[in-house]
Amino acid sequence: MGRNELLERVKSRMPEKRFIHTIGVMETAIQLAEKYGADTKAAETAAILHDVAKYADEEWMKTIVRENGLDARLLDWGPEILHGPVGAWIAENEFHITDEDILNAIRYHTTGRANMSKLEKIVYIADMIEPNRKFDGIEVLREKARQDLDEAMRACIRHSLAFLVECKLPIFPDSIECYNDYYKSLV
Amino acid sequence: MGRNELLERVKSRMPEKRFIHTIGVMETAIQLAEKYGADTKAAETAAILHDVAKYADEEWMKTIVRENGLDARLLDWGPEILHGPVGAWIAENEFHITDEDILNAIRYHTTGRANMSKLEKIVYIADMIEPNRKFDGIEVLREKARQDLDEAMRACIRHSLAFLVECKLPIFPDSIECYNDYYKSLV
Repeated sequence: MGRNELLERVKSRMPEKRFIHTIGVMETAIQLAEKYGADTKAAETAAILHDVAKYADEEWMKTIVRENGLDARLLDWGPEILHGPVGAWIAENEFHITDEDILNAIRYHTTGRANMSKLEKIVYIADMIEPNRKFDGIEVLREKARQDLDEAMRACIRHSLAFLVECKLPIFPDSIECYNDYYKSLV
Repeated sequence: MGRNELLERVKSRMPEKRFIHTIGVMETAIQLAEKYGADTKAAETAAILHDVAKYADEEWMKTIVRENGLDARLLDWGPEILHGPVGAWIAENEFHITDEDILNAIRYHTTGRANMSKLEKIVYIADMIEPNRKFDGIEVLREKARQDLDEAMRACIRHSLAFLVECKLPIFPDSIECYNDYYKSLV
């Protein structure tokens, strides 16, 4: 499936603002893939599809989790955590993506996880720093992304955790495994 | 074993400053136990022993973990995480404490965990707010401890996580389960 067809199909599943974000993630992911020697086409595809489930109905997503044997812990979580894994399911089952690395980049784009692939890091970081995002500290993350992919990932997952604790939001265990993956060696 | 004998035996295992902290935790834990209807003697015992392993040798602690079937994840962690579970092992095997609630209060006093007992919360909170502790925000935690045990525990575990992320320190999974226990319902 070409870029334009993919974009058209995800556009119909989200509000304009989220689609503009998706374009930003796509462009940023392609730049990072070029810079760090990843497959730019895979980065493009994963980025376009990363939020494909963002506006799916929560109960429908839980049904998908139950009926397809996705990680059962997801059933205790809300759309913010569900939309990554269910997005990967949609990418595989509706968009016929078979590349497991692309599916994982979609699956873990919100939480991160331990031992992320280069493509997973690229999509995670691109989602956080694409040009339409605005939050305190984003320029530091953008600068790190220009310098070193792992330093950027390290800073991004730390920023995510700090944000969740600040906002009193729960933290999916995969995010802690991702954070510990980067900070455990510093003990 | 009486209070004085217990105190004397832990005193020989730690520097003066840590012993003064231990007295502070003991007094605070007894106050909290009185206020919230827990066993004051159990609170006293757990508080006196909570840091009994704080200055134990790291390799010795890992040997204890290996030889006694303690949580194998501990082998990847340093003294800050090891000293709680190994302290509980010392309490049981050297001090002959058999009350599982006291042992758990020692075991989880650093990390917290999901579904903490009243005594576990009391020792966790007392460790954080005892009179010798000084850090930004401690008065808010002390005030919460005067009002409501669960609100205090909720604020304390959140403060701990924020501190760990701020200091770029790794986070033991039990702490996230504790945090999520308090914040998950807010999603």
